[in-house]
Amino acid sequence: MSSTAGQVIRCKAAVAWEAGKPLVMEEVEVAPPQAMEVRVKILFTALCHTDVYFWEAKGQTPLFPRIFGHEAGGIVESVGTGVTDLKPGDHVLPVFTGECKECRHCKSEESNMCDLLRINTDRGVMLNDGKSRFSIKGQPIYHFVGTSTFSEYTVVHVGCLAKINPAAPLDKVCILSCGISTGLGATLNVARPKKGSTVAIFGLGAVGLAAAEGARLSGASRIIGVDLNSNKFNEAKKFGVTEFVNPKDHKKPVQEVIAEMTNGGVDRSVECTGSINAMISAFECVHDGWGVAVLVGVPNKDDSFKTHPVNFLNERTLKGTFFGNYKPRSDLPAVVEKYMNKELELEKFITHEVPFSEINKAFDYMLNGESLRCIIRMGA
Amino acid sequence: MSSTAGQVIRCKAAVAWEAGKPLVMEEVEVAPPQAMEVRVKILFTALCHTDVYFWEAKGQTPLFPRIFGHEAGGIVESVGTGVTDLKPGDHVLPVFTGECKECRHCKSEESNMCDLLRINTDRGVMLNDGKSRFSIKGQPIYHFVGTSTFSEYTVVHVGCLAKINPAAPLDKVCILSCGISTGLGATLNVARPKKGSTVAIFGLGAVGLAAAEGARLSGASRIIGVDLNSNKFNEAKKFGVTEFVNPKDHKKPVQEVIAEMTNGGVDRSVECTGSINAMISAFECVHDGWGVAVLVGVPNKDDSFKTHPVNFLNERTLKGTFFGNYKPRSDLPAVVEKYMNKELELEKFITHEVPFSEINKAFDYMLNGESLRCIIRMGA
Ligand SMILES: NC(=O)c1ccc[n+]([C@@H]2O[C@H](COP(=O)([O-])OP(=O)(O)OC[C@H]3O[C@@H](n4cnc5c(N)ncnc54)[C@H](O)[C@@H]3O)[C@@H](O)[C@H]2O)c1
Ligand SMILES: NC(=O)c1ccc[n+]([C@@H]2O[C@H](COP(=O)([O-])OP(=O)(O)OC[C@H]3O[C@@H](n4cnc5c(N)ncnc54)[C@H](O)[C@@H]3O)[C@@H](O)[C@H]2O)c1
Ligand SMILES: [Zn+2]
Ligand SMILES: [Zn+2]
Ligand SMILES: [Zn+2]
Ligand SMILES: [Zn+2]
Repeated sequence: MSSTAGQVIRCKAAVAWEAGKPLVMEEVEVAPPQAMEVRVKILFTALCHTDVYFWEAKGQTPLFPRIFGHEAGGIVESVGTGVTDLKPGDHVLPVFTGECKECRHCKSEESNMCDLLRINTDRGVMLNDGKSRFSIKGQPIYHFVGTSTFSEYTVVHVGCLAKINPAAPLDKVCILSCGISTGLGATLNVARPKKGSTVAIFGLGAVGLAAAEGARLSGASRIIGVDLNSNKFNEAKKFGVTEFVNPKDHKKPVQEVIAEMTNGGVDRSVECTGSINAMISAFECVHDGWGVAVLVGVPNKDDSFKTHPVNFLNERTLKGTFFGNYKPRSDLPAVVEKYMNKELELEKFITHEVPFSEINKAFDYMLNGESLRCIIRMGA
Repeated sequence: MSSTAGQVIRCKAAVAWEAGKPLVMEEVEVAPPQAMEVRVKILFTALCHTDVYFWEAKGQTPLFPRIFGHEAGGIVESVGTGVTDLKPGDHVLPVFTGECKECRHCKSEESNMCDLLRINTDRGVMLNDGKSRFSIKGQPIYHFVGTSTFSEYTVVHVGCLAKINPAAPLDKVCILSCGISTGLGATLNVARPKKGSTVAIFGLGAVGLAAAEGARLSGASRIIGVDLNSNKFNEAKKFGVTEFVNPKDHKKPVQEVIAEMTNGGVDRSVECTGSINAMISAFECVHDGWGVAVLVGVPNKDDSFKTHPVNFLNERTLKGTFFGNYKPRSDLPAVVEKYMNKELELEKFITHEVPFSEINKAFDYMLNGESLRCIIRMGA
């Protein structure tokens, strides 16, 4: 047991006091973990669009003050009662969605949408007592998706922590906590292209590039990148993307352009944009008879997916995925091993790095579209 | 070789001279099979909605005079040049869609949508020379979906004939040529419920009941039948349907009724109605995390399938199937064996039987909604 176990820890955290306003470095108090909870010392965290989205709070009910952050790597400091799977010193990745191992979803081979620990962006407190573990002079600060990794210490439900190989460099594998695993798993676990397949990737952000990385690992012969922003194309080459289509360059719908390029359609497509138009195109561009399209992007509330049902009857399949269908605790350790075996390349996703004190720069890089992933070094 | 090989055969056929008018028994001339064609003596044929639909010709370009019929069993009379897989005396089921064994679809394990022999309802002639093999006093009579089984003899492309066990009773297995295999395969090959699953079947016509039969064979624990016509429910019990829902009996959408009955949704659903509303409900009633919905019904031209894309992101899958994903030549013989092994029950689908001379009665039975399948005995 560490000397801090059972004690409140005072440490630095980047607090969002208001929607859209720069985070403020504060000294926060982090309460000890309760039943089934774990307190984690965060060493590295990264910034994802979802943090920015909820920080901007343009659509959702705003919940402030809040500590954002959900892509990270850290070390267990102490564990609450009932925690048997983890002990102080274990290396872990916190994940925004969990795996209780007890519910119907956790027991199903196919699902990772745990009934107990499924992502809940509206909840700012811990399940055990409905309260926050963070406070500043007695004022509670809300959690974010159960992870709140923009803090030197955080408290996470044991079901939202993947225990990984302690030899894995946390400043690299921390990005497997969210977007990169989402895109990678969308291809490897859901689209499952065979060797030699043609694959279309819609949206060449970090998630789409990770989906392309999955297609490269699967031995796809052609990887067609589709993005409205032609600047994305150059970087995408590093990720094995072999051809590019910008829908704006064509008069006909992009699904028709792709069908012409591929003698009737691609074998697999993965949509990583959040745009309903891209979702429809991604479905309609797969080949009849065997084509599979996978939706990853998060749509708007009133979007409607529309297509002629004959597109299904012609033996196309449409699926969606959440976190690339990975079960966080059961499956992430093996993804980390893929990196350790040099199968999976993570370095190319990491375009920037800043010390914790300069975390707001990470927001700027992302908002300017400069970065794929910016690593934030804690304790610096 | 039979004595008729190479000769024109005169025989009886039921000719549709005009849309919606009773078929007329005529003496027709059936030319010998050309390259890759086979002349088949039909012993039994059945009537399917698709025959009635094209006979009514309410939407499509009418093509008359025509010989309908596409569910049948017969014996090879003679073969054209290049035919090596079949010889006179072989027992065969003609199928409205074919398998050339050469194209990308035939070579793919997943598809049965042969590029060469895929169903074509607009074509009334043979592929080899673009002409009909049927005539009456020199006037050509059009073929229907390459089968035209409402004739004592017909000419079919070798790729549209499944060679089956000669011990199989043709008056039973003839119904495997179309609707029954379609429904059965939709469940067994595409929805693939696990033992103990809950399955919803939308539409309790012959196709839906065959889908239910597939669910029974898969060991489903609950089979929920959904139909707008409550009269369908009684018969459906014979097919293993355990519960019934008539959408008209409920104020809320049927997908919500089913979700309540099943703690969140069924594991699998199979839509066999052709109604776009049923297609949407069938998709939205499957459980998140693992649910799979399969569309079978043929929609109207301007139908649009609409749903919120989050229904996909919550890990639901939507597929469609054509002929239950069976490859006619490769897979139908094994379906016949399932019947021979008493696994699959076919008798319960056969509600009526008429001699060929009374074929118009079969149309009446279907139009009145009395029959599931009416067997038409040729040579009688
Ligand atoms: N399902 C999950 O579990 C999960 C997890 C993480 C992220 N996401 C979602 O994945 C999506 C992608 O995330 P990201 O971080 O890579 O985002 P990003 O904004 O960096 O990238 C999206 C890309 O899509 C492009 N784009 C937008 N509309 C397009 C269109 N109609 N056609 C072609 N390209 C188009 C943009 O130009 C951009 O390059 C987002 O919707 C995000 O919310 C889902
Ligand atoms: N995909 C293929 O390869 C293939 C092959 C054969 C038939 N089909 C199609 O399968 C469908 C069913 O064929 P069938 O011969 O069993 O037809 P059928 O008309 O005998 O049965 C359809 C049933 O669906 C019910 N129904 C209609 N709308 C409904 C709704 N909104 N909700 C619930 N029930 C509804 C009807 O009351 C009827 O009982 C048809 O669309 C047919 O064209 C497809
Ligand atoms: Zn669970
Ligand atoms: Zn994220
Ligand atoms: Zn073929
Ligand atoms: Zn039919």
